[in-house]
Amino acid sequence: MQFHFNGFEPGDPDISDTAKRHLTSGSSGTLPEKVDVLIIGCGPAGLTLAAQLSAFPEIKTCIVDQKAGPLLLGQADGVACRTVEMFEAFGFSERVLREACWINETTFWKPAQNGQATIARSGRVQDTEDGLSEFPHVVLNQARVHDFYLDVMQKSPAALEPYYARQLLDLQIDTSVAADDAHAYPVTARLEHAGQIETVKARYVVGCDGARSTVRKSIGRTLHGDSANHAWGVMDVLAVTDFPDIRCKSLIQSANEGTILVIPREGGYLVRLYIEMDKLEAGERVSNRKITAEDLIAAAQRIFKPYVLDVKEVAWWSVYEIGQRICDKFDDVPEAEIARRSPRVFIAGDACHTHSPKAGQGMNVSMQDAFNLGWKLASVLNKRCVPDLLHSYSAERQAVAKELIDFDREWAALLGSSEGFDAAETQRYFVRHGRYTAGTAAHYRPSILTGEPTHQHLAEGLVIGMRFHSAPVIRLADARPLHLGHVAKADGRWRIFAFSGAEDPAASDSGIRALCEFLDSPSSPVRKFTPAGQDIDSVIDVRAVFQQDRRELAIEAMPPFLLPRRGRYGLYDYEKMFCPDVKGGDIFTMRGIDRRSGCMVIVRPDQYIADVLPLDGFGRLAAFFDNFMIQKNAVSG
Amino acid sequence: MQFHFNGFEPGDPDISDTAKRHLTSGSSGTLPEKVDVLIIGCGPAGLTLAAQLSAFPEIKTCIVDQKAGPLLLGQADGVACRTVEMFEAFGFSERVLREACWINETTFWKPAQNGQATIARSGRVQDTEDGLSEFPHVVLNQARVHDFYLDVMQKSPAALEPYYARQLLDLQIDTSVAADDAHAYPVTARLEHAGQIETVKARYVVGCDGARSTVRKSIGRTLHGDSANHAWGVMDVLAVTDFPDIRCKSLIQSANEGTILVIPREGGYLVRLYIEMDKLEAGERVSNRKITAEDLIAAAQRIFKPYVLDVKEVAWWSVYEIGQRICDKFDDVPEAEIARRSPRVFIAGDACHTHSPKAGQGMNVSMQDAFNLGWKLASVLNKRCVPDLLHSYSAERQAVAKELIDFDREWAALLGSSEGFDAAETQRYFVRHGRYTAGTAAHYRPSILTGEPTHQHLAEGLVIGMRFHSAPVIRLADARPLHLGHVAKADGRWRIFAFSGAEDPAASDSGIRALCEFLDSPSSPVRKFTPAGQDIDSVIDVRAVFQQDRRELAIEAMPPFLLPRRGRYGLYDYEKMFCPDVKGGDIFTMRGIDRRSGCMVIVRPDQYIADVLPLDGFGRLAAFFDNFMIQKNAVSG
Repeated sequence: MQFHFNGFEPGDPDISDTAKRHLTSGSSGTLPEKVDVLIIGCGPAGLTLAAQLSAFPEIKTCIVDQKAGPLLLGQADGVACRTVEMFEAFGFSERVLREACWINETTFWKPAQNGQATIARSGRVQDTEDGLSEFPHVVLNQARVHDFYLDVMQKSPAALEPYYARQLLDLQIDTSVAADDAHAYPVTARLEHAGQIETVKARYVVGCDGARSTVRKSIGRTLHGDSANHAWGVMDVLAVTDFPDIRCKSLIQSANEGTILVIPREGGYLVRLYIEMDKLEAGERVSNRKITAEDLIAAAQRIFKPYVLDVKEVAWWSVYEIGQRICDKFDDVPEAEIARRSPRVFIAGDACHTHSPKAGQGMNVSMQDAFNLGWKLASVLNKRCVPDLLHSYSAERQAVAKELIDFDREWAALLGSSEGFDAAETQRYFVRHGRYTAGTAAHYRPSILTGEPTHQHLAEGLVIGMRFHSAPVIRLADARPLHLGHVAKADGRWRIFAFSGAEDPAASDSGIRALCEFLDSPSSPVRKFTPAGQDIDSVIDVRAVFQQDRRELAIEAMPPFLLPRRGRYGLYDYEKMFCPDVKGGDIFTMRGIDRRSGCMVIVRPDQYIADVLPLDGFGRLAAFFDNFMIQKNAVSG
Repeated sequence: MQFHFNGFEPGDPDISDTAKRHLTSGSSGTLPEKVDVLIIGCGPAGLTLAAQLSAFPEIKTCIVDQKAGPLLLGQADGVACRTVEMFEAFGFSERVLREACWINETTFWKPAQNGQATIARSGRVQDTEDGLSEFPHVVLNQARVHDFYLDVMQKSPAALEPYYARQLLDLQIDTSVAADDAHAYPVTARLEHAGQIETVKARYVVGCDGARSTVRKSIGRTLHGDSANHAWGVMDVLAVTDFPDIRCKSLIQSANEGTILVIPREGGYLVRLYIEMDKLEAGERVSNRKITAEDLIAAAQRIFKPYVLDVKEVAWWSVYEIGQRICDKFDDVPEAEIARRSPRVFIAGDACHTHSPKAGQGMNVSMQDAFNLGWKLASVLNKRCVPDLLHSYSAERQAVAKELIDFDREWAALLGSSEGFDAAETQRYFVRHGRYTAGTAAHYRPSILTGEPTHQHLAEGLVIGMRFHSAPVIRLADARPLHLGHVAKADGRWRIFAFSGAEDPAASDSGIRALCEFLDSPSSPVRKFTPAGQDIDSVIDVRAVFQQDRRELAIEAMPPFLLPRRGRYGLYDYEKMFCPDVKGGDIFTMRGIDRRSGCMVIVRPDQYIADVLPLDGFGRLAAFFDNFMIQKNAVSG
C-alpha cells in the first residue's frame, strides 16, 4: 500500500476521505462504581490487556486514559515478529501485514576510506534470520496498532470502549482483604474528569500509564537505572534523498558527526530517523537545550554526507535522553509478603521498564507484559486458577525486562560511541542479537507455570519457557494447510499439542489413544477443570499431530476424544487433528520432535510452552494443572 | 475461524453481538437526476462494477437494488482462485482468506462393490493443481462478498452507497446520440420506489439484475439454451454425520438414489449439499412439484448410506432446474450496427448467462464480467479511451461465457447421469477442467486489446489474452518479498512489466535503459496519454524486473524513469524495480521468460495480458495504445 505521499495523514489509509479516517471510540457517561479490573492508560500495554479481557463478558473491565480520545500519531513504530504472532492470536495480523512497512534488510554504513568526511556501506544482513518466525519484522505507527485493538474490543463479547479524559489522582489498597474474597473490591481509585472527581472500586488495578506512572508511585515503586547522558533526536520525515538505502533499516556511523538509524515506514515514503545529538553534561537535561527540528535536520544532513537529504515535511519529532530503567518488582506485594498475600495492583510497560527506542523494543515488551497478565487475571476472576498465580506476572516479566535492559544498554552504548567503534563488530552484534529484537528470546525460568527441562529432548525445537514456535501442518479432516501455532487464539485457553509416535495412531494400543483415554477420564485435568455444561475444550484445548501423510489416515478410526462435540447441536469439531505438511516442511523435523515416542507440549494461554512431557506422562500432566487450577464439577461424558 | 456452531448467523463473525453483525448501507433521499453510470442490481456483478467505478470520484455512479437492504444470506458461495486474485486488486483478499472455507481436496464416492446399496470412496485429488494461482479456491457466503465490496465502496474516493428498494420499470435509449457527445445522457430509466416513480438520465446503464433482467428485456435480448429437465435441491445445513469427507468437497454418485455434491462451508460446521432430485417430465417445472426441505433431507440420507446424516438446522434451501443459457450479445448494439454506434446499455452476470451452480462458476464469471467492463467505462468517461472500446466488453465476455456454458453443460450432464456413469472418468474430467473451475482458463482472442502471439515465445508462461499469472519477486529498494501481480490494483491503470535481458541493467546500452529512454520521450504512450499535472504512472504504470540478485544491483545506477517522483513533494517512488526471489522461485524460470533478450508484458487494468513484446518493440508498443487511447497534453519532464 502506498500512502502519506502528499503529507502525513493519520488514521486508516484505506479510507479515502481523510476526515473520516479516525476511529470513533470512547464511552460516554460516568465511570462504573465497581469493576473487576481497572486499567489505567490506553497505550500498547493497556489496550492489549483490555483486548484480552474483553473476550470475557463476565469480567467487568474499565479502561481509562488521560487523553481526550484515541491516539492519532504514536511514538513507537517497531513491531517485532513475536508481536505479529500475538496479533495473529488477536485476529488482526493480516491487517498489520497489509498496512505496515516490512523490515527485510538492515544495512551498515561507516566512514568512507577515501579521506573525505563521507560514509560508505560496510555491510548488509537479512533483518530476521530464516525460520525465526513465520511472520516478518514490520514497522507501523503505534496509533494504528491502537486502532486495531480498539476494533477488537468494540467487536468483543464485552463490547469494551475506553473512558477518555480521565486523570488518575491516587489509589488506595486495602491489604487486609483475603486474596480469594470474591466479594471484595480492595482497591479504590480516584480520577479527575472535567473538574469532577470519580471514584472506582476495583478488584485489580493495572497501571499502564507510562514512564511517569501514577500507579507505580501509588504502590511505592521507582524506576532504577541509568539516566544516560546521551541525547537523541527522532523525527518522521518525508524527504527526497539520494541515499540508496533509505527504504532499508540502516545504521550510519559517521566519522565525526555522530550516528543515525534509518527506519523506513509504512506507505512507501515516510522515514524515521534517530539522530545522535551531542553528549549531555552531567545533570544537564535535554529540555534545557532548546533543540529544534531544524537542528535535527542539520545534524542528519551532516551525517548523511555525501548524500543529500532534502526534508519536505516533518510529520513528528522529539528529542530525548536514553535511559534504561526498571522497577525491581511489577506489583504491589513486597518480596517479604509474597507468601502472605496476592497482588492487587500491577504495573506494565513503560510504567515499570523503559528502553532506548532504537532497539525497537518498548512497545513490543509492553504488549507482551499485558499478554502475560491478561489470561492470569481472567483465570483468577473466573475462578479457574488460584490467586497466587498472579505472583508469576512480576516474576516472569521483571526477569525478561531486566535481560532486555541489559541488552539494550550494550546496544545503545555501541551505537552511541562515536569514537573507537567497530562497524564489523556492530554488525556481528546485530546478527547475534536478532532473536532479542525479534522478541523471540524471552525465556521463563522454571516455576509452577514452567517445567524443568527433564523431557526437553522429546521436542528440542519447542523450548520449555519460550514461546511456542509455530510450524506448518495439514488439517486431517479437510487437507487445509495452516500454521499449527495459529490455532492458539487469545481466548484464555490452555493447549496440549500431542505429537504422535511412529505407530499407527488408530491402533488400539497407540500412545495417542492411551492419552486420549486418560484425558477423557474423570481424573484428567480436562475433565476436572472444565465447568459442567461447557464444551470439553473450553479450558484445555487438545490438538493431535500425526506423523503419517493424511491420506494414510482415516478420521473415523481416530480416538473419539479428538472429534469433540460443540455447541447446542453437539456438532463435531473437525479441527483437532493434523498431519505434517510435506510441501511446507515436516513439523517433526523442524521442531526436533522425537519420532519414535512422540510427546506432548503444554502451551499457556499466552503461547508460552509450560512443559514438554512424554505422551504417557499422565501423572506429571495432572500434577502440573493441579498446582494452580481449581477443580470444577466434572463434565458429563 | 469457527462460527455458526450454534446455528447460522449472518454478518461479520468477528462481531460478537449478532445484532450488530450487519453492515449498515444505503443512501437515503431520492435518486440523482443525471448520472454517468446507472447500475441496476447489487449482486456480485453490480457491486464489482460499483467498487471499480468508486475509485473515480469524477465519475458519477448510481447503483440501485430492488431489495430493501444488503443481502444477509446468499445463494452463491464458490470463490475461484482467479476471483481471489481480483479481490487482492480490490484490497480485501486477506479478509476473504481469513473468513472463508478453503477447498483443498475433492473426493469421489461411488457405489460400494459389496453388493449393498452403499457408497465407498473411489478417489481423491488435490482441488487446485500446484502453481495454478498463488491463492486457494475458497467458499464463502455471497452476502459476505457483498459486504466486502460495500466496505470498499464506502471508503472509496466516490464514497458510494447503493439506493435500495428501487424497482426498474423500463429504459429508453436515444440511439441518435453520438458516442462521443460529452453532454448527452441518452438513456432514461424509470424506477419505482415506495409507490413513487423516479427518473434517472444516464450516459450508460448496466443491467446486473439477474436471470429475470429487466434491462435485458429493455434492449430486446433473450437468454437462449437448454431448459434442462433435471431438478436439483440445494441446502445449507448444520448436521451430525459419520461421513468422513464432510469437510472436503465430495462428489457422491450412488447406485440408485442419485448424486450429491458436498461443499464444506466457512466457520468449520456449515455444509452445503447439492442433491439430485428425480428427472422432470418435459414441460414440468420444479415449482409444480411442491418439494420440501424434508424431501431434500430424505434424499440426501438415502444417497449417503451407509453413513448417517442427522440434520440439526437447515440455514437455507432451494430447488431449481439446471439451465445453461446465454445471450448472443451483452450490449444494446445489434451486430449490424457495431460500426455505426457504441453501446450505451450493457448486461452482466446472470442477466446474460446462467450456469449450473455446482461448477461454482456463476458468481465468479459475473464478477469478472464487471471487472472487464469497469475500467473500460471509466476510461471512456475520463476521455482516456475512445467509446468504440466498449464494443470489446460483449465480444470478450460473451465468448468466455459461451465456453463456460459448454463446459458446464458437459459437467452437469456427467453429474446428472445416474446410470452408466464412470467414476474414474468423472475424476479425470474434474482434473482436466480444474483450470476452468479456478477461473484461470479465460482466454481473449486477438483484437484491438489483445495482440497476436507473435512474440509469445519471449514469455511462454504469460499468455497473451489470459490473466497475468503472478509470481514471487523481491523489491530492489527494500528487499521485500511480494507477488509481482499484486502491484496490479483495481485502479484503472495499465501496466508494463519490463523483464530485463541477461546484461547489466545499469549499463549504458542495456535494453531496459533503452526502453526507459523511449518511455520518457514525447512519442511514448506514457507521455502521450498521461494528462498534464498527473503523476507519470497514473495512466500506464511501468515496473522493471531484473535477473540479477538484488545485492548485485545499485538502485542509484538504474534508469531514472524507474525512480519516478510522486505527489506534491516530488518524493521518489521506490516500488518500481524488482529482482527474482531466489527462495520463493525465480520468476524468469517460472514464467518461461527469455533470459537472453528479456521482454515486456502489457497488462490491462483488469489484469489480462494484452501483449508480449520484445524489449525494443517501441513501435508496436506505441501502435497498440494508439489504437484506442486519446492523446493528452504531454506531461512536462
